[in-house]
Amino acid sequence: MTLPRSRSPLLLTMGDPAGIGPEITVAAWRALHEGDVVFAVAGDPALYASDVPVAVIGDLAEAEQVFSGALPVLEIPLNAPVTPGQPDVHNAQAVIDAIAQATRLALSGHAAAIVTNPISKAVLKAAGFPHPGHTEFLGELCDMAGVEVMMLASPQLRVVPVTVHVSLRQALATLTTELIVETCRTTAEALKRDFGLKSPVIAVAGLNPHAGEEGLMGGEEIEIISPAIDILRKDGLHIKGPMPPDTMFTPAARTTYDAALCMYHDQALIPLKTLDMEHGVNVTLGLPVVRTSPDHGTAFDIAGQGLASPESLVSALKMAAMIGRNRSEAHLRPE
Amino acid sequence: MTLPRSRSPLLLTMGDPAGIGPEITVAAWRALHEGDVVFAVAGDPALYASDVPVAVIGDLAEAEQVFSGALPVLEIPLNAPVTPGQPDVHNAQAVIDAIAQATRLALSGHAAAIVTNPISKAVLKAAGFPHPGHTEFLGELCDMAGVEVMMLASPQLRVVPVTVHVSLRQALATLTTELIVETCRTTAEALKRDFGLKSPVIAVAGLNPHAGEEGLMGGEEIEIISPAIDILRKDGLHIKGPMPPDTMFTPAARTTYDAALCMYHDQALIPLKTLDMEHGVNVTLGLPVVRTSPDHGTAFDIAGQGLASPESLVSALKMAAMIGRNRSEAHLRPE
Repeated sequence: MTLPRSRSPLLLTMGDPAGIGPEITVAAWRALHEGDVVFAVAGDPALYASDVPVAVIGDLAEAEQVFSGALPVLEIPLNAPVTPGQPDVHNAQAVIDAIAQATRLALSGHAAAIVTNPISKAVLKAAGFPHPGHTEFLGELCDMAGVEVMMLASPQLRVVPVTVHVSLRQALATLTTELIVETCRTTAEALKRDFGLKSPVIAVAGLNPHAGEEGLMGGEEIEIISPAIDILRKDGLHIKGPMPPDTMFTPAARTTYDAALCMYHDQALIPLKTLDMEHGVNVTLGLPVVRTSPDHGTAFDIAGQGLASPESLVSALKMAAMIGRNRSEAHLRPE
Repeated sequence: MTLPRSRSPLLLTMGDPAGIGPEITVAAWRALHEGDVVFAVAGDPALYASDVPVAVIGDLAEAEQVFSGALPVLEIPLNAPVTPGQPDVHNAQAVIDAIAQATRLALSGHAAAIVTNPISKAVLKAAGFPHPGHTEFLGELCDMAGVEVMMLASPQLRVVPVTVHVSLRQALATLTTELIVETCRTTAEALKRDFGLKSPVIAVAGLNPHAGEEGLMGGEEIEIISPAIDILRKDGLHIKGPMPPDTMFTPAARTTYDAALCMYHDQALIPLKTLDMEHGVNVTLGLPVVRTSPDHGTAFDIAGQGLASPESLVSALKMAAMIGRNRSEAHLRPE
């Protein structure tokens, strides 16, 4: 059992300090400091202090009081000086520490949710970090490795890829009825608990062109996907599909479901990013902690030039606050 | 050598008479009969005569004279009565005959271009039709089977899938450097000849998430796609890629190229249909005849109810006329 967390602040991680993380953090504080969404950042205060007032805090509970006048920072010191656009493996441990600390504080209820700035997988890998990304690391920190599910959400569309950061060939080899069922159950639970939808509708994509056209162009719909849908419907879930992948994201089709369950990374991410690159938010489902992140990378090529848009990070902060509130209210509601 | 065809009419095929073809044909004539785009339909006059004035013509050359006052029809009689929404295999041969006749008249220069109404693969297959679709049938009628390339074009995006109507598993097995090179050469030639672009830019998609991330998530970018790009650049073509599939269709990225060469059906069709279901046009590249078609199916479920939008067919007719004009002018230009 966790405590109600609606009044706890969000905790934003530093991300790679040589990427656009510091500047979008500053811009997000500017955009939000007069409102209801309160956050602190776990990072090195020197990354922000030249641009905005900074308040180094020792306890997350102090964040709310200072937030309107300064960016609250839980200090995670860097090892090496930062040059925007030039990532440095000597700072990798601090980047990892920020994520670990944020997760601990979210697990203990001191942070309402975690929001993560972009990291560089190549830099962290060079420092010995064994995880493909944030999501898998968080799964391990929560002692629930493999349970975590990635959702990408924008104002127009929510998508959940069943297979994620693997080659397309590996995605085909990995896809099973069990994996689809488990991912869809986690998605349905999150749509209820985190997004406040009482009876969510989930559209399950086919894998092949035209969803296989009754076996003419691939058998996975018949052998793997439809059996999963049968099981999910027996659970009482409202499922559509297997849907032809190319027509399920049209403007008209998008209005008929709350989330699309996709069979591979690009089937999910192509429609989302085609529609909206600015407001996409990555949400990790299935874990005891709430975690969102902007739907873009470190953007080393434009870091430090004032060109990066904070829109996706602001959307991620707002969504984390919304999910934190929904979870807190669900906690207070009688079952 | 073919004759200049800018003044020849377009020839529209009947498509499945129980689908939405007849009603969108009528609506397209209504939308276009006062303008410059002149077409005749190869079909059964009874399909249209209750809705608009019809002029049965014996020779395509008569179409231009009658077009403003009546829908010109080259008669292809049906064998069985038509009930909208209920396809009848007895009419399959007439559907096929219309396509064959249109192709003959385009090859001879009497039709400036072919525009095809949707057919039902299941119905034609039941009647013994051995081709997966229009595109492959046209390739054979032109004695150039295997050369044809499918482009989908909307006002925002042009996409060309390298592998098309095969399972995703089969697409992975089929993808070769040679196939990418040939498809891209045909695409570049068509962008010049048919779309009037002097120095087209083609974006070549990766196959895997993040275009494989330097081999971490799949090797096809390194082993198959990049070698193709090297060959194409040596041809003098302007090629970008391999591009990460999920970010190459964002609003900003779309402005940086004239067409996207995609590795499989849904990588091409998801972004196109996510953006625009109404104005997508299917263009067959690489053949001596120009052929376009609306980017939707027979829609038996709504046929005869007056619900079908003629927008895509109207776009297909306009694009066919534009390509016919460009080819005709290219023919008249000195090399």
